[in-house]
Amino acid sequence: MAIASPDLDLSTLFAPRAVAVIGATGRAGSVGQAVFGNVLQHSYAGVVYPVNPRAVSVMSVKAFPSVLDIPDEVDLGIIIVPRDAVSGVMAECGEKGIKAAIVITAGFKELGGAGVELEGQVLQAARASGIRLLGPNCLGIINTEPRVSLNGSFARLMPRPGNIALVSQSGAVGVAALEYAQGEEIGLSKFVSVGNKADLNENDFLACLRDDPQTDVILFYLEDLAEPRRFFQLAQEITSGPKPKPIMAIKSGRTAAGARAASSHTGALAGSDEAYDALFAQCGVLRVETLKQLFDYALAIGMQPLPKGNRVAIVTNAGGLGIMAVDASVRYGLEIAPLQDATLEKLRQGLPPAANIHNPVDVLGDGREDRYRVALDAVLQDDQVDGAIVISTPQLMTDLPAIAATVAEVTPPYGKPTLVCQMALGEIDETLAIWTKARLPHYSFPEEAARAMGAMARYAASIQPASQEVKCFTDVDREALKNLLVRVRMAGRRHLLEPEAHELFRDYGFQVAPFHWAHSPEEAAWAAESLGYPVALKIVSPEVIHKFDVGGVRLNLNDPKEVSQAYREVLAAVAAAQPQADLQGALVQKMAAKGRETILGMTRDPQFGPLLMFGLGGTYVEIFKDVIFRVAPISEHWAEKMIRELKGFQIFTGYRGEPPADLGAIAQCLERLSQLVLDFPEIKELDINPLMVFPEGQGAAVLDARVFISEQ
Amino acid sequence: MAIASPDLDLSTLFAPRAVAVIGATGRAGSVGQAVFGNVLQHSYAGVVYPVNPRAVSVMSVKAFPSVLDIPDEVDLGIIIVPRDAVSGVMAECGEKGIKAAIVITAGFKELGGAGVELEGQVLQAARASGIRLLGPNCLGIINTEPRVSLNGSFARLMPRPGNIALVSQSGAVGVAALEYAQGEEIGLSKFVSVGNKADLNENDFLACLRDDPQTDVILFYLEDLAEPRRFFQLAQEITSGPKPKPIMAIKSGRTAAGARAASSHTGALAGSDEAYDALFAQCGVLRVETLKQLFDYALAIGMQPLPKGNRVAIVTNAGGLGIMAVDASVRYGLEIAPLQDATLEKLRQGLPPAANIHNPVDVLGDGREDRYRVALDAVLQDDQVDGAIVISTPQLMTDLPAIAATVAEVTPPYGKPTLVCQMALGEIDETLAIWTKARLPHYSFPEEAARAMGAMARYAASIQPASQEVKCFTDVDREALKNLLVRVRMAGRRHLLEPEAHELFRDYGFQVAPFHWAHSPEEAAWAAESLGYPVALKIVSPEVIHKFDVGGVRLNLNDPKEVSQAYREVLAAVAAAQPQADLQGALVQKMAAKGRETILGMTRDPQFGPLLMFGLGGTYVEIFKDVIFRVAPISEHWAEKMIRELKGFQIFTGYRGEPPADLGAIAQCLERLSQLVLDFPEIKELDINPLMVFPEGQGAAVLDARVFISEQ
Repeated sequence: MAIASPDLDLSTLFAPRAVAVIGATGRAGSVGQAVFGNVLQHSYAGVVYPVNPRAVSVMSVKAFPSVLDIPDEVDLGIIIVPRDAVSGVMAECGEKGIKAAIVITAGFKELGGAGVELEGQVLQAARASGIRLLGPNCLGIINTEPRVSLNGSFARLMPRPGNIALVSQSGAVGVAALEYAQGEEIGLSKFVSVGNKADLNENDFLACLRDDPQTDVILFYLEDLAEPRRFFQLAQEITSGPKPKPIMAIKSGRTAAGARAASSHTGALAGSDEAYDALFAQCGVLRVETLKQLFDYALAIGMQPLPKGNRVAIVTNAGGLGIMAVDASVRYGLEIAPLQDATLEKLRQGLPPAANIHNPVDVLGDGREDRYRVALDAVLQDDQVDGAIVISTPQLMTDLPAIAATVAEVTPPYGKPTLVCQMALGEIDETLAIWTKARLPHYSFPEEAARAMGAMARYAASIQPASQEVKCFTDVDREALKNLLVRVRMAGRRHLLEPEAHELFRDYGFQVAPFHWAHSPEEAAWAAESLGYPVALKIVSPEVIHKFDVGGVRLNLNDPKEVSQAYREVLAAVAAAQPQADLQGALVQKMAAKGRETILGMTRDPQFGPLLMFGLGGTYVEIFKDVIFRVAPISEHWAEKMIRELKGFQIFTGYRGEPPADLGAIAQCLERLSQLVLDFPEIKELDINPLMVFPEGQGAAVLDARVFISEQ
Repeated sequence: MAIASPDLDLSTLFAPRAVAVIGATGRAGSVGQAVFGNVLQHSYAGVVYPVNPRAVSVMSVKAFPSVLDIPDEVDLGIIIVPRDAVSGVMAECGEKGIKAAIVITAGFKELGGAGVELEGQVLQAARASGIRLLGPNCLGIINTEPRVSLNGSFARLMPRPGNIALVSQSGAVGVAALEYAQGEEIGLSKFVSVGNKADLNENDFLACLRDDPQTDVILFYLEDLAEPRRFFQLAQEITSGPKPKPIMAIKSGRTAAGARAASSHTGALAGSDEAYDALFAQCGVLRVETLKQLFDYALAIGMQPLPKGNRVAIVTNAGGLGIMAVDASVRYGLEIAPLQDATLEKLRQGLPPAANIHNPVDVLGDGREDRYRVALDAVLQDDQVDGAIVISTPQLMTDLPAIAATVAEVTPPYGKPTLVCQMALGEIDETLAIWTKARLPHYSFPEEAARAMGAMARYAASIQPASQEVKCFTDVDREALKNLLVRVRMAGRRHLLEPEAHELFRDYGFQVAPFHWAHSPEEAAWAAESLGYPVALKIVSPEVIHKFDVGGVRLNLNDPKEVSQAYREVLAAVAAAQPQADLQGALVQKMAAKGRETILGMTRDPQFGPLLMFGLGGTYVEIFKDVIFRVAPISEHWAEKMIRELKGFQIFTGYRGEPPADLGAIAQCLERLSQLVLDFPEIKELDINPLMVFPEGQGAAVLDARVFISEQ
């Protein structure tokens, strides 16, 4: 995979002065005809040359036997020749001085076998001449910018100009998206089908679209990421800068990933999909599920201001649809704004007595544009309203275009997002022009508007705070830890014994339940005396994985006699259950005070690097899988967000008379864990389970942990 | 509210021989014009008479000053006069011998105040003459049956004939639904806007549509139910009979219900929405959220056979869309069918080598109808496939109508549901006729097809088993329980003390942890000796609600000295914390073995009657709200379903080496609870928390419970 320079100039790809379509033909139904026809027939502002050794002209345009025969300079080559001929053609392109090439021909890496090799040859040919290559196995590109107007693809449609760019890893999904956009009269700035990504990949286009003045919103359909870490950096920069551009992505294949072999809870719970979720969330990319959502949200975010919060006002001329909008709003995470007294008073004065002045505001079936004006002015002025959904249905006296015009006129000065839902398929045409001109996103159903508003609020809330500094803890003992890991490795082990794990976390500044590794009953009793009671006693043996199951754990021991007795019993029980186990004494550990059980963990993804996990501990982990993943390193902001995003977050907030939990301590543990796993790449996987979280101000302590290190 | 006779004949409403439109007018934009015009202009097979005292004719049809002036018989009156005139007109209708009336005029109960009274007068006038009344404040009715063809509404559209009936409580939602159906070319059999439901309500139409040969699927938009218990009976009968008709409903206002005052967990968790969920589930009604879902599912269920399971095969000519369909299928509860070897072999032989023969089957971008034929024949023949989703995208050589025709030809003999998704907006017209003729439901996006297939599978699984007998336990002591409740009431209490609650459940055959109500330290010690150790000791006092918080509970007591000591300490602690509390001794209870904590409960809904609740106990109840409600009485089938529907059901299944829990015991507790609360309507609310569930064969025991009784 090529590492694209962040400053790569793709202007020859998107705005070439001259294009050669190599493999152009007039044969109906062929790709060569489709591509050449698209370039020729959609007002391309440059010059297009068909290249075909067996034709004098293609679609009446003079053809050339090879690019080398074209008398003028050519910037871009679009290649549709049989796959075995592609690398030869690429070499000719190089000789011609062509700077960018799109290989539409399929039959390469996607087929495996010889295809992989062929693709390598094509890439090599391109590299040899400094050609940047899109594809192979792609649909091509489209640039709707009027001064270029290039459809260099075999899609049947030329989208109308707009401010949304779409990059698709699947040609067919690209086509489906273009069809949908056309049907909904949605404009696009650029369209790119990245195909096999032999050279240029999504990151190159991300960098390019960042700087594209025609593009306000960037959409992706992805099946994988070529270089996740670079995508992360670019996306973070684009979404959080001074003039942020929203990025939305479908990443398909949620369910395709097979289970991976994992030693830890964290590893078992971390599918690749969780990694993508984490990555997208952290770099400000709104992940969506469907093409419909992609465009629904892009329109809202691309055309309207972002809401400052999630409180929505609904204005409708039909009560039933107002209720449905309320249900949907709540479902999509919005709050139904409680209107202030002054607002209610305005509504009372401006609307008829039968109108519902409370949110959802019902201007009634005979409500005309004047009532919409009153209602919208009132609710949008209200500080407690962050955005509005306007519903209009065709009732007897309803003048839908007049209502659309009123919404377009009234709402912009308030700087709050307004989405419209007109439930009349027949009259869309009359009102569409009004909405388009006013940049008002429109939806067919209240729930679609509510879902889009919910996405806007979620997106607005996810925008990064300016400072995202990752803390560096200095109260950590790297040397000690290094030595510890060397010792483990020298003992021929790939996992730490429990006392070693506690030592590791203690070295990295975690609060750890006081412990001692005892090697005799007497030492255990002595340790208990010095740690203080009650204590727990647990077998230490590299072979014993499930300590509880073999009688290897005793809890709540309260005096030295009990402790030494327990030591003997535990060793005897384990020896009986696992005669081969090498028993290395027992861990004597002070029992911790009552707290909330949580789990902290890390597993490494081959592409994404270390993934941190936080979740509710105990049975919760496995039954409810209420865990959150993030990619390390993480800032305090993200550590806090991880905690708050748990479904069961309420458990920490002083629920049911319990004191609130020490959230700061959890966040710090996460930040320390982040530093630990970056400092020690040889730590492969780990669980702290439980991390016992005490009331506010009392910290959080590691009570048990499993740490696995890599083979070398 | 009228109790409609189950045998009510609504033929005069749906198929009148003559209709009078009272308030008909030619004034453009008026309701009177809209209704009369609709009856006149949509090929109504009967005779329509405009009634208007100030017009000689309406839209060129001779008008009459009043219904009494019409020389012929009239079956149906549609009334659009001002609201104060409605009851007078109704009386005239009665005099004329009219049998059914639709009052479209608004301004009645929905406005409150005088409107309520006026509505009462209208109803009275109708009753006095035996007129069945639809409305007031409604849109009217539509019957598309060609031999009637009546549009007795002011909706602007006359739907095309079809097999779907729609009953809407909101006129505007009805209009929106008609608009949508029109746009999607979906046919309807009947449309009813029920308005204020002064007389006829959804139940009457349910009974009528049950017997309507034109209707195969019944859809509802509901804001409330007039008589939930009757709806339940009717719907259950319709969905489970020998020729079941599917019923789907939107019930809006999910989030509108305020919190109700409740003494129990069960009461606090039971919103009215949970009651609706329970009711719909139990009577086989598929509850959906949106109009789009309503029609998407109705088309699938109305046109295709139901799947026998949830295993779906996907056939596509675009890999990316196949993956999106897989993601969506999994999201909507489907399983991606693993294809059998024989199937794979057929695919291998019939498709090119580059095709993906595993599910999702990819016939490739150049795949024509012949490959779809091979793929569909292979997957539909596979026993492990319950249904198919067919995706086609317009690629270069694709002949979409030919593919549609092939799907239409190949799929029906297999008797497995097939849904199509053609991602080409422009070419819908060419293929639509093919789909319509073949009754193939089509969707714009793979996720919509997957969602509909998911709904079909869910619906198929929800169809009632033939025998739904509710058990009657005879090993219960009604007399003892009756006496107990009398004692409680005589003590002036509205809740049972804990020992009384244990007594109650013991009397009804529940397994209860052995207990004794002790009134002195000595009695407590003696009780412990006879119960066996360890025991718990809990304060008994009508005033003490939170026993734990005031030091009123001691656990794990192991000898008589400890017990008597604990008795003294507990009483002293509670006396100190709540000096006013009347201390009535302590409950000595044998500690139960370890098990899974669950909660069982009941609360009474004023409309729905007793709602039973089951869920995971402990913190789960309040944080994850993982509880299921059902309406009593319940059969064993439903008791088992309640348990299995829990999100955390896995906790019972012998997860992590624990033995499987005694599910039969839980089901029996639910059935006993059902009987208990029906036998004793004076029990208002109760929690069994926890019901400790032991391993299979060891039962489930009530460890603590709270029971509240009604005022009288």
